[in-house]
Parts: sequence; structure tokens; C-alpha cells
Amino acid sequence: MGHKGVLVVVSGFSGAGKGTVMKELVDRYGNYALSVSMTTRKMRPGETEGVSYFFVDRSVFEQTIAQDGLIEYASYCGNYYGTPKRWVQEQLDSGKDVILEIEMQGALKVREKFPEALLLFVMPPSAEELMRRLTARGTESKEVILRRMERAVQESEGIENYDYIVMNDKLEDCVAQMHAMIAMAHNRPEQKREFIAGMRAQLGALVKGEK
Amino acid sequence: MGHKGVLVVVSGFSGAGKGTVMKELVDRYGNYALSVSMTTRKMRPGETEGVSYFFVDRSVFEQTIAQDGLIEYASYCGNYYGTPKRWVQEQLDSGKDVILEIEMQGALKVREKFPEALLLFVMPPSAEELMRRLTARGTESKEVILRRMERAVQESEGIENYDYIVMNDKLEDCVAQMHAMIAMAHNRPEQKREFIAGMRAQLGALVKGEK
Repeated sequence: MGHKGVLVVVSGFSGAGKGTVMKELVDRYGNYALSVSMTTRKMRPGETEGVSYFFVDRSVFEQTIAQDGLIEYASYCGNYYGTPKRWVQEQLDSGKDVILEIEMQGALKVREKFPEALLLFVMPPSAEELMRRLTARGTESKEVILRRMERAVQESEGIENYDYIVMNDKLEDCVAQMHAMIAMAHNRPEQKREFIAGMRAQLGALVKGEK
Repeated sequence: MGHKGVLVVVSGFSGAGKGTVMKELVDRYGNYALSVSMTTRKMRPGETEGVSYFFVDRSVFEQTIAQDGLIEYASYCGNYYGTPKRWVQEQLDSGKDVILEIEMQGALKVREKFPEALLLFVMPPSAEELMRRLTARGTESKEVILRRMERAVQESEGIENYDYIVMNDKLEDCVAQMHAMIAMAHNRPEQKREFIAGMRAQLGALVKGEK
């Protein structure tokens, strides 16, 4: 296929600071589109259609699944959540780099459908720091924090599936690094197919002309 | 294995400017080691053992082949040329990023032995520009230039095997970009094995301690 934009999948331990990093990235640089999920959950006060989510009813969601219209989806607390393929493709075709924040299992599903996706895993500088950040929020019980840490242990087994690790020690550095990784991905052969094809044709024509 | 340094393989069309880019890269930044080949060719005036080449006799070279001591080798005009594995490994282990300039077939052999190698392909901005650079040298006959262009047509079929394309339009930009690509490669999971293993152990210990 070869899109103009790069599909970026961002995962990381709960507490690693993904949300902050991505918000900063989008605010600071112009070329990013944060993926908007489709959901069957009811709209809440303050939420906006097409910004917070695409709100649809169950039959529309299931029809979209049937038509292979979602990059990945899951059901949570009786509601569906998924990533609409068409919206993502439109953004990529228009030249935007699309960022998708998603947990590990979803990330691997995305790679199946978009082998050219760039998979980034955000990590804290240490396990102690992760614990400190989770505790510092002050909003979660000890049990919830423990569950998140256990989840991190599980997820740490799959980090090798990602293209790059993004260390979130200092926010500034982390955002700059993530931006550089995405910018660089535009130089992969998968992203340069038109250029390579053009070069082949030009070289062939020049050689023919010289003979 | 997981080395401290990154093994970088640089290929590109003849005339793309690989040599200039690599020299500038090594001059400008501190952490690079240019790979030194082993050869059975006689030393020429002005050449230095261990800098220009490692000069050995035929029996030593063939013994090195037999011991799987070369990352790749080829024979040219009756002499052997090859890349000593041990020297490269020592440099990587000491933390140096090792740069190997090598043509496409050799590059793919290197990837077999070092799957973590970063493969970069240097390209001119256009076929016309490549032709212009080859002609501007003024030292080669029309036939030689034509042969190089034909070789470029062949090599253009294998570009998809490389990790990144490095566009050599302006030297400054090209060198900076290559440096950034190599620096970024230190953030791949293959290069961060110790950190990931440490994180797993720390997380596990913390979770155990909390229970």
C-alpha cells in the first residue's frame, strides 16, 4: 500500500506517562493526528462526537466488525471500543502521522493489519520510579496500584515486539526522541516506495539512452 | 547476544557519496569505528597495517575462513578481502558503533550473522544527479560510468532489504541524519536487553514485596 503518513502505535506500562507524552507531542508538532476510537458507550457531558469518540449504536459497531472496518476492537464493561480503519487510512493518505495509544495485545493486532506500523513502548527509567508515579497520583488504592504493577510484569515480557523503547525520564527529552523516531520512519523503504520506483525507472531510462 | 555498540552496514550506488558521508560522520562524531578489512593483497606504499587493512598471507586468511572468523569475504583480482568478526565484536563490546561499507550481497550476509545490524542505503536525490556525480569525477571512461549505472539498476531491486534510506542531497543534512538513525538504534529492544531484564527483575521484586 504505502501511505504518506506513518501509523504510530504507542504502548507502555500504566504510569509510564504515555498520555502526557502524546499530548505534548501533538501540541508541539504539527503533523500528528491522535486516533479517535469508535464506541457503543453513551456520550458523557463534556464529550464531543468525533473528538472524544465516534459514538455509534451496537448494530453499527457490529456491522463495522463484520465489514472488517476496525483495526482492532475489544469489549469492556459491556461496551465495544475499536479503532476505525477508514479514518486512520484517510489521515495517513492525507500525509498525517497517526498516533494510536493502545495496550500490547491490541498493538500486535494492529501490526498484523498494518505491518508498516511503528511500534513504540514507553518505559519509566526504573521500576521504583513507576511505583512512585502510580502512588503520587494519590487517586488509586494500594490494590489498584499492585494490579497495575502486576500487569507491568506481564507486559514486560512482550517489549521485544516493539520497534523502539522510548525512555520517559525527562518529558522534554522523551517527546523530542519520540518525534525523531517517527520522523525517521519516513525514511524506511516501505515509506519511500514511490521514490524507489521512480529511481528505478529513471536509472533504466538513462542506461538505455547511453547505449 | 546484545552488544553495547551498533553494527552499521552502509551500502549505496557507486557515486552516491558513501565514502564522503562516512568520513565526515567519523570526523564529526566521536563514537564510530570504521571497520578494517583483512586482505591477502600486498601492502602498498603509504598504507598502514591495522588502519588501511590487516595484511595477512593466504594460509592465515583461509584458516580464518575455516574458523568462521569472517563476517563476510570475497575474492577480487586473485586476492581475498574480508571483514574480521573478532575485531568487529571487540569494538562493539567496547561500546563503539562499527561502520562497515559494503555492497549489497555482502550486506545481506552480514545481516545473517548479525541480525541486529542496522542496514543503511545511501541514495542520490535522482538518477540524473547520480550520473552527474559519476561524470564529474572526470577519471572514468564512458564505459565504466555505464557499467556503474547498470549496477545501480540491479542494486535498486534490493533496497527493500535495508532498514533506512539515507538521502544524500546536502552532505551536512545527510551526515546528521545518518548519525540520528544510528543513535536511535540504541533504543531498539535488541540493544536494551540488560535494561529490560533489569526492569523485569525490579518489577517482580516490588510486586512480591507489596503482597
